[in-house]
Amino acid sequence: MSLLVVGSVAFDDLETPAGRRENILGGSASYFSLAASHLHPVQVVAVVGEDFGPAQYQVFQDRPIDLTGLIRKPGQSFHWKGEYGTDLNEARTLETHLNVFADFHPDLPSAYRNASCLFLGNIDPALQLDVVRQMAARPRWVALDTMNFWINGAREALLEVLQSVDILLVNESEARALTGERTLPRIYEKILALGPKILVVKRGEYGVALLSPLGHFLAPAFLLKDVVDPTGAGDTFAGGFMGFLASTGHTDLQALKRAALMGTVMASFTVEQFGTLGLESLSDNALHGRLAAMHDLIQVVRT
Amino acid sequence: MSLLVVGSVAFDDLETPAGRRENILGGSASYFSLAASHLHPVQVVAVVGEDFGPAQYQVFQDRPIDLTGLIRKPGQSFHWKGEYGTDLNEARTLETHLNVFADFHPDLPSAYRNASCLFLGNIDPALQLDVVRQMAARPRWVALDTMNFWINGAREALLEVLQSVDILLVNESEARALTGERTLPRIYEKILALGPKILVVKRGEYGVALLSPLGHFLAPAFLLKDVVDPTGAGDTFAGGFMGFLASTGHTDLQALKRAALMGTVMASFTVEQFGTLGLESLSDNALHGRLAAMHDLIQVVRT
Repeated sequence: MSLLVVGSVAFDDLETPAGRRENILGGSASYFSLAASHLHPVQVVAVVGEDFGPAQYQVFQDRPIDLTGLIRKPGQSFHWKGEYGTDLNEARTLETHLNVFADFHPDLPSAYRNASCLFLGNIDPALQLDVVRQMAARPRWVALDTMNFWINGAREALLEVLQSVDILLVNESEARALTGERTLPRIYEKILALGPKILVVKRGEYGVALLSPLGHFLAPAFLLKDVVDPTGAGDTFAGGFMGFLASTGHTDLQALKRAALMGTVMASFTVEQFGTLGLESLSDNALHGRLAAMHDLIQVVRT
Repeated sequence: MSLLVVGSVAFDDLETPAGRRENILGGSASYFSLAASHLHPVQVVAVVGEDFGPAQYQVFQDRPIDLTGLIRKPGQSFHWKGEYGTDLNEARTLETHLNVFADFHPDLPSAYRNASCLFLGNIDPALQLDVVRQMAARPRWVALDTMNFWINGAREALLEVLQSVDILLVNESEARALTGERTLPRIYEKILALGPKILVVKRGEYGVALLSPLGHFLAPAFLLKDVVDPTGAGDTFAGGFMGFLASTGHTDLQALKRAALMGTVMASFTVEQFGTLGLESLSDNALHGRLAAMHDLIQVVRT
């Protein structure tokens, strides 16, 4: 299965209780592709500015990531500045400079249009819909992430694109804002009526819930002694999740569960370091070691 | 193994988004013993007032609960009034009337003093210590629950009794208040130094974390469509957890994990109805059905 992500590639300024970093690589497509590339080749559609240089290209080119669809335009890249309080649960946005991203109109290279797994990162739902329409054939999996800004401000377009989506990945407050419900079973009922058959609710340090017609799955986050920077955890999860689905080809409940565990473990590496550093330095040994530890953490022998 | 609980038996006035109830049966020893009694006989030490009548006695006498240690005194029973907001995560105490509980000095019947499992419900740590000293022999398991009121206001006594405790059961904010740490691995390091070898952190709708020298376990809460009243969820968890340990006799990691799942499932019945009603009407069939569903929710086949 081929795997395609459409999203943002950005520079971030971050402040967390663990410290502060400026101009570090960020954006949904960055976290997604770096995570997924540990499992499967990835094609990227995004836009960057002239400040995106050889050092940044190198991060992706070190891995099986196809940058044919990464367009470089005159101007500056998307730039986000945010900070986290001690509970690390929610970022406070200090500044958003769209820059070249303001005129982003994804144009899929023809080689990308037959991708069998498509991840629509958190961008304007109108652009997400445009991407879906450019596909030559219906992908096996279309997954979508969004945020309260679009849920509240572009609801009509979001509802339209959701009709073409198999897997909705959102955090708990987004799931509640989208449906007006509080509990996961009630949220899932409403989501089913909107189109997606699979709902993945990201719960930060409390893990993830996956609801599907085949059955549901609840998994905790990996136990970490320290969290340095939660930025990108959700997109990293999505990269691990979709990368696993693309690599396995299976579509049963066990595959979905294992994909969720892979996303969870992948995200644990992201939050241990600033920006994409945890993913950049991730080895297969470390990944598989932590996956085994994750299984131990949740496994109960059935009597 | 014999199982003993020392705690409160009370009347509660509750208001949640689902409704309001007055003068319903509550208290840590009530929830604990009703839950544990589905798994193992329980001995209760607590005090009630003259308002505790035949209807209340009947709730316990319908089950294998030994009330030799339930003392009835002149005056009114402990009475708590609380309310919950829409997120149901934390109760706001509106009124606390200690009544006969103000002079509670647990006096263990001689037949109770050889209990092999002891649960010290959330009462004054000085009383908890007094109970430990009345035991004829060191129980196999001593478990303790406490709250921020004692952590902040009776820290010395709490630290003293913790030295005799095997299993500490607290919620996440209590664990943080007690240790000054934020992440579970760091909290556990500090707890180990205080005495308890096993830490159970109750995370409400996000489930439970068990940390032990044998290994750790993270389990989600059971998926519920509606939560009516979270009162007693923690004591119900403790009853299911300790009742399982008392019934199995095993002390290995798998037994601890299964005990945690039992507590989790037991608590799901409590929060679906006001007060102890969910536990009073619980059938073995319903319990085992939900336990099987819980296994399905968390189980991943290892490849």
